Amino acid sequence: MATKTLNVGMIGYGFMGRAHSNAYKQVGQFFPSDHKVVLKAACARDEAKAKAFAAQWGYESIETDWRKLIARPDIDVVDICTPNNLHKEIAIAAAKAGKMILCEKPLSMNVAEGEEMVAAVEAAGVANMVWYNYRRIPAVTLAKKLIDEGRLGKIFHYRAKFLQDWTIKADLPQGGQGLWRLDVAVAGSGVSGDLLAHCIDTAIWLNGPMKDVTCLTETFVKERLHNLTGKVEAVGIDDACLFLGRFANGSLANFESTRYARGHKAAYTLEINGEDMSIFWDLHDLHRLQVFDYKDEAKIRGWKSIHVTDNSPDHPYMANWWVPGLAIGYDASFTHQVADFIAGLESGTPAGPTFRDALETQRVLDAILASAKSHQWVNV
Amino acid sequence: MATKTLNVGMIGYGFMGRAHSNAYKQVGQFFPSDHKVVLKAACARDEAKAKAFAAQWGYESIETDWRKLIARPDIDVVDICTPNNLHKEIAIAAAKAGKMILCEKPLSMNVAEGEEMVAAVEAAGVANMVWYNYRRIPAVTLAKKLIDEGRLGKIFHYRAKFLQDWTIKADLPQGGQGLWRLDVAVAGSGVSGDLLAHCIDTAIWLNGPMKDVTCLTETFVKERLHNLTGKVEAVGIDDACLFLGRFANGSLANFESTRYARGHKAAYTLEINGEDMSIFWDLHDLHRLQVFDYKDEAKIRGWKSIHVTDNSPDHPYMANWWVPGLAIGYDASFTHQVADFIAGLESGTPAGPTFRDALETQRVLDAILASAKSHQWVNV
Amino acid sequence: MATKTLNVGMIGYGFMGRAHSNAYKQVGQFFPSDHKVVLKAACARDEAKAKAFAAQWGYESIETDWRKLIARPDIDVVDICTPNNLHKEIAIAAAKAGKMILCEKPLSMNVAEGEEMVAAVEAAGVANMVWYNYRRIPAVTLAKKLIDEGRLGKIFHYRAKFLQDWTIKADLPQGGQGLWRLDVAVAGSGVSGDLLAHCIDTAIWLNGPMKDVTCLTETFVKERLHNLTGKVEAVGIDDACLFLGRFANGSLANFESTRYARGHKAAYTLEINGEDMSIFWDLHDLHRLQVFDYKDEAKIRGWKSIHVTDNSPDHPYMANWWVPGLAIGYDASFTHQVADFIAGLESGTPAGPTFRDALETQRVLDAILASAKSHQWVNV
Amino acid sequence: MATKTLNVGMIGYGFMGRAHSNAYKQVGQFFPSDHKVVLKAACARDEAKAKAFAAQWGYESIETDWRKLIARPDIDVVDICTPNNLHKEIAIAAAKAGKMILCEKPLSMNVAEGEEMVAAVEAAGVANMVWYNYRRIPAVTLAKKLIDEGRLGKIFHYRAKFLQDWTIKADLPQGGQGLWRLDVAVAGSGVSGDLLAHCIDTAIWLNGPMKDVTCLTETFVKERLHNLTGKVEAVGIDDACLFLGRFANGSLANFESTRYARGHKAAYTLEINGEDMSIFWDLHDLHRLQVFDYKDEAKIRGWKSIHVTDNSPDHPYMANWWVPGLAIGYDASFTHQVADFIAGLESGTPAGPTFRDALETQRVLDAILASAKSHQWVNV
Repeated sequence: MATKTLNVGMIGYGFMGRAHSNAYKQVGQFFPSDHKVVLKAACARDEAKAKAFAAQWGYESIETDWRKLIARPDIDVVDICTPNNLHKEIAIAAAKAGKMILCEKPLSMNVAEGEEMVAAVEAAGVANMVWYNYRRIPAVTLAKKLIDEGRLGKIFHYRAKFLQDWTIKADLPQGGQGLWRLDVAVAGSGVSGDLLAHCIDTAIWLNGPMKDVTCLTETFVKERLHNLTGKVEAVGIDDACLFLGRFANGSLANFESTRYARGHKAAYTLEINGEDMSIFWDLHDLHRLQVFDYKDEAKIRGWKSIHVTDNSPDHPYMANWWVPGLAIGYDASFTHQVADFIAGLESGTPAGPTFRDALETQRVLDAILASAKSHQWVNV
Repeated sequence: MATKTLNVGMIGYGFMGRAHSNAYKQVGQFFPSDHKVVLKAACARDEAKAKAFAAQWGYESIETDWRKLIARPDIDVVDICTPNNLHKEIAIAAAKAGKMILCEKPLSMNVAEGEEMVAAVEAAGVANMVWYNYRRIPAVTLAKKLIDEGRLGKIFHYRAKFLQDWTIKADLPQGGQGLWRLDVAVAGSGVSGDLLAHCIDTAIWLNGPMKDVTCLTETFVKERLHNLTGKVEAVGIDDACLFLGRFANGSLANFESTRYARGHKAAYTLEINGEDMSIFWDLHDLHRLQVFDYKDEAKIRGWKSIHVTDNSPDHPYMANWWVPGLAIGYDASFTHQVADFIAGLESGTPAGPTFRDALETQRVLDAILASAKSHQWVNV
Repeated sequence: MATKTLNVGMIGYGFMGRAHSNAYKQVGQFFPSDHKVVLKAACARDEAKAKAFAAQWGYESIETDWRKLIARPDIDVVDICTPNNLHKEIAIAAAKAGKMILCEKPLSMNVAEGEEMVAAVEAAGVANMVWYNYRRIPAVTLAKKLIDEGRLGKIFHYRAKFLQDWTIKADLPQGGQGLWRLDVAVAGSGVSGDLLAHCIDTAIWLNGPMKDVTCLTETFVKERLHNLTGKVEAVGIDDACLFLGRFANGSLANFESTRYARGHKAAYTLEINGEDMSIFWDLHDLHRLQVFDYKDEAKIRGWKSIHVTDNSPDHPYMANWWVPGLAIGYDASFTHQVADFIAGLESGTPAGPTFRDALETQRVLDAILASAKSHQWVNV
Repeated sequence: MATKTLNVGMIGYGFMGRAHSNAYKQVGQFFPSDHKVVLKAACARDEAKAKAFAAQWGYESIETDWRKLIARPDIDVVDICTPNNLHKEIAIAAAKAGKMILCEKPLSMNVAEGEEMVAAVEAAGVANMVWYNYRRIPAVTLAKKLIDEGRLGKIFHYRAKFLQDWTIKADLPQGGQGLWRLDVAVAGSGVSGDLLAHCIDTAIWLNGPMKDVTCLTETFVKERLHNLTGKVEAVGIDDACLFLGRFANGSLANFESTRYARGHKAAYTLEINGEDMSIFWDLHDLHRLQVFDYKDEAKIRGWKSIHVTDNSPDHPYMANWWVPGLAIGYDASFTHQVADFIAGLESGTPAGPTFRDALETQRVLDAILASAKSHQWVNV
């Protein structure tokens, strides 16, 4: 039975605000612990929107200024669900106020910002985490376990793709509500920061740091109407971003992301080829981990489609849900992340990715964008 | 904003008690309506278990006698999550008390019980529903829409299977907590009532009533230790149940369920072959509806794998969740069912399956078990 | 180097005449042996067609009367590729003439005919075989090996389907060139003899004899223009045939075939569920054997997709073809069958299915059609 | 009926010698034309091997010196199936002798050699072709048709991979029979010339010329025993080769090949993302073309799995084989290529890829290897 409370102050009310709120509400039922999560306050500049969001999700109060939220003594955790260009300022202020911080990904607009943020949370000694939620899809977590057990042997190749198709239309505007991801001033970059950031975070977690990269970016639609200015403006983001590189362990990287891959909605796939085992995962079929085990008998060796839904410790997180064969959703990865964050508080071993972990992803992002610009190989 | 409350009294705290509770908690966030669901009371014979369940899920109070729960004026809806042999008595009492009733499937132990239950709820004029949740998996709901739009043309074949493998071990006991599904006195039947009931409900919904059947059942393990008596006793349930038959519309039925299909966890699959279109669905990949459209151009005709995750009205329920490509879980089907139940209350058009609808499934179940016994074709 | 010749006399020139001829031509290159196959004579009633076929495929001579072909002393093997209603007469005559016989499936129109044919070849002591070619798809042959090695353990379930959709049009005529399979007088039955015969042959080979059955057949289109009479006549064949039953080993059978399953071209699938292992195969992806091995470690247990293309003895027949990953065609199964027939001649251990083996399939076919007629369970 | 002969002189007797010979033998049966292919002479330095090969495949005569073969007046076509380092010399000599030439891929060791070869065949005016057989897999040919019909719209992305795993063992030697592909002096390069060459040929055919590239290669095992010298020697080939680049039409390229991708035998996959349609193909399931058609109705839009086996003109080449649903093998792609070569002779429009076409692939190969060496972007 929970004996402590964890009062959450949520900044933002969009897609991620909803996903995180759902996780806060579910965690106590599926992953009971000593901590009870309380939805204390929801913060948005627009008061009506803040009120509606608070009412729908059960937040006890609202704020319209994030500085006031941070100043409140009854807030333990600040959850930053704003567009990317606000992460730094809010995070540093929250750290100074001694709040725990859960920040949406990517950590920051660039390495420089990220370094400031890391310095701030470490100076303040506050718990911190970045919402790279795909680490907590059970099939991905199982992949991590297989790697940590040494089952893959020497790694030769790591491939990751994140393909979408929702911006293939010349008349889609940029900027403003729901479209800030197309506005470079707010998002910082295009698919690299939005989608490849996920791929890179998982890759570093599974396969260690990257060494160097060569990158190609493209902006297929050069100008779009800007919702905030009402003018047609140059598009500053990368619509597509592809890079090759090397990991420190000698394996080769092939990464690609685009919003111009017709037929793909959110096709995050990853494949790792090791001497003894290869694994493959696809977000569109998120419960399936494909494993090729070279140690299997040759006669019946093949790619195994593991439906990671057993309610046993073999399948991470699943013992807390339903019965074998029954799926959980994308949303559950957030519930797992909150559960792990709390477990980290209770055990004293912080769950990752911390701000410091997430800074490594920013280093790769900066390197690839520099390479795309210079047409040179760039060290991470 | 919700202006009315719907106070739920939950009887039971097992797998289904958890699934329904999660749905009650989620529905207001994802499918806001005029009704606010309140978890009013949880009921279980064992007080400690009732308390623990109430605490974990947020029920305001507990009861240890379902008759007391039903008698409470502050309960609007009774949710029956007990084993099958208690459905009838509770439902009839709840109806008499004027409560709305949400009953776990199958409706009853047999047709005779089911008829009494239907009579009771209809006499009382209370809203009622049975938790055949698979109707509310978005891909299955989409299948229903395609059929209702007449896209399949004349139907020739309907095939359904529900395959599991969890009882393949001679030393698994029967009866008691978690194993009552193996005890014929409590469950009424084996895979027929537990698994085929789902397949039959969906089939009648999608393809209309059945006419006649020939059935084969098998009990592979003849005796098992009974947890309640401590003795090895004959196993009375069907471990496997297969039947062929005809629907009223002239199409042919092939249904099969078993708990002895090694490699299958909860493999509910259905396929319908129509003159113009065929469809296929598999619970293990619950977001994918496979569609073969004969009206497609011959050159590029093939089975389409539709990832039913668009957040648009094209994909049922999904506009209320995340963004295209991102999965929801098995659990969401219950959330949808509560949402539809409430919408039925608000619109005056009750959402199905009502008790009367579910009685049709009981008729098929009785017919197949009679056929298995008599080795004759039996009319439904 | 081949030192003996095997002179083939081919009766028929249709789909199967071509498939067998291709096999005769290929076998010496891919499966060299002591026997050289010689395409000695092609026989068809229509002289022009016989000549054209012989010229295209390299037959040295032609006949227009199968009795003359059988009488020729330079013919060693008679290959019967005629419609089903001629199998018996030709086979018995060929046996009396001392010829080896390779007969297209099904062996005969019914059990009575089949018994006469078996008696004839056994009395004559001539080598004989029926073209149930699917036994020689490498993935299916591998399945047989796994079963013979006892890997599946006790078998609980055997499922087979053969689904097509090519007769879904009311204006398709019956009878005559290319459409004799719709004419009951010539074909003997519909999908049962044409398609289920394959499924039954494989099943008996893999899982042993069947005991009893209950069957349902349907003729969706009741009348069709008859090409030979020019009149609309009743359709006598089964368009769909489904049956349940028991094998002698206690496992349950679920078989289905139809030509009204929109979206399926030649979807022969089979699945066997054993206590320790399950296997699945689909003719549309003929190189893939799906295997679920319960003895795999729980954490990474899943269905394995084995691409049966290794050029090693692990993968039957494949060492004689290309390199790993590269597919052979449906046609290769016939090449393998000729290779095995020759190996049987050379070793003295005849390759199956012999006429006697194929008679068992006829017994099941007669039983299911009797059951469909009587609406009773029928013993095989 | 064939009225002309095409006398083939085959140089080489390995994997490709067998594949081409099978095609020469089959073409007359499946793709009858005015030309009858005659297996006139097989040439190999080792007389015993030449004799054995000729006997098995039915070549009428043998030669042990390719110069003599070329000098024979009864040879119309020279088929070069030697290792790569001999292509140029033989091809130029054959051209001078006025022979038609079918040359194994890659055309040459590099662009310089290729240019000499193109000059030679064009000066001599002899028919010429390179065995990039994957163009003639029916699913790939269908892809070409869809593109030529303009169905894909503007192309954004082209991805191709060719993954194998057969050299993942440090003790595998290099050089000599069966292993010359590991010997840079004979093969010219590693996976780039062996595997990526196929991907590049298909890409140029489907998507037009490439503009510039950045490439990464790796040799995982640095030294191997050399079979010809008996010494451990440095490995000169690329074990893995990845490159990014741009096509002239503005689409982005992502290509990768390796022999260190555990679990992949011959995994040639390609995907093209166009504004209106995307397509995907995988050699391991060679009959399936996956197509996503954005013009499909949104409600039932998804990737279609087209089983390219209809015996109609809709599915290239398939009308000449079996019936819908029945696969042909990898080998058939060579049969198709011979059929197209002959059709080119008869129509006067040469079938591709000619030497000149194949030279474009060499230009890309040279560019990527130069980029891998210089760590710079290189123009093709």
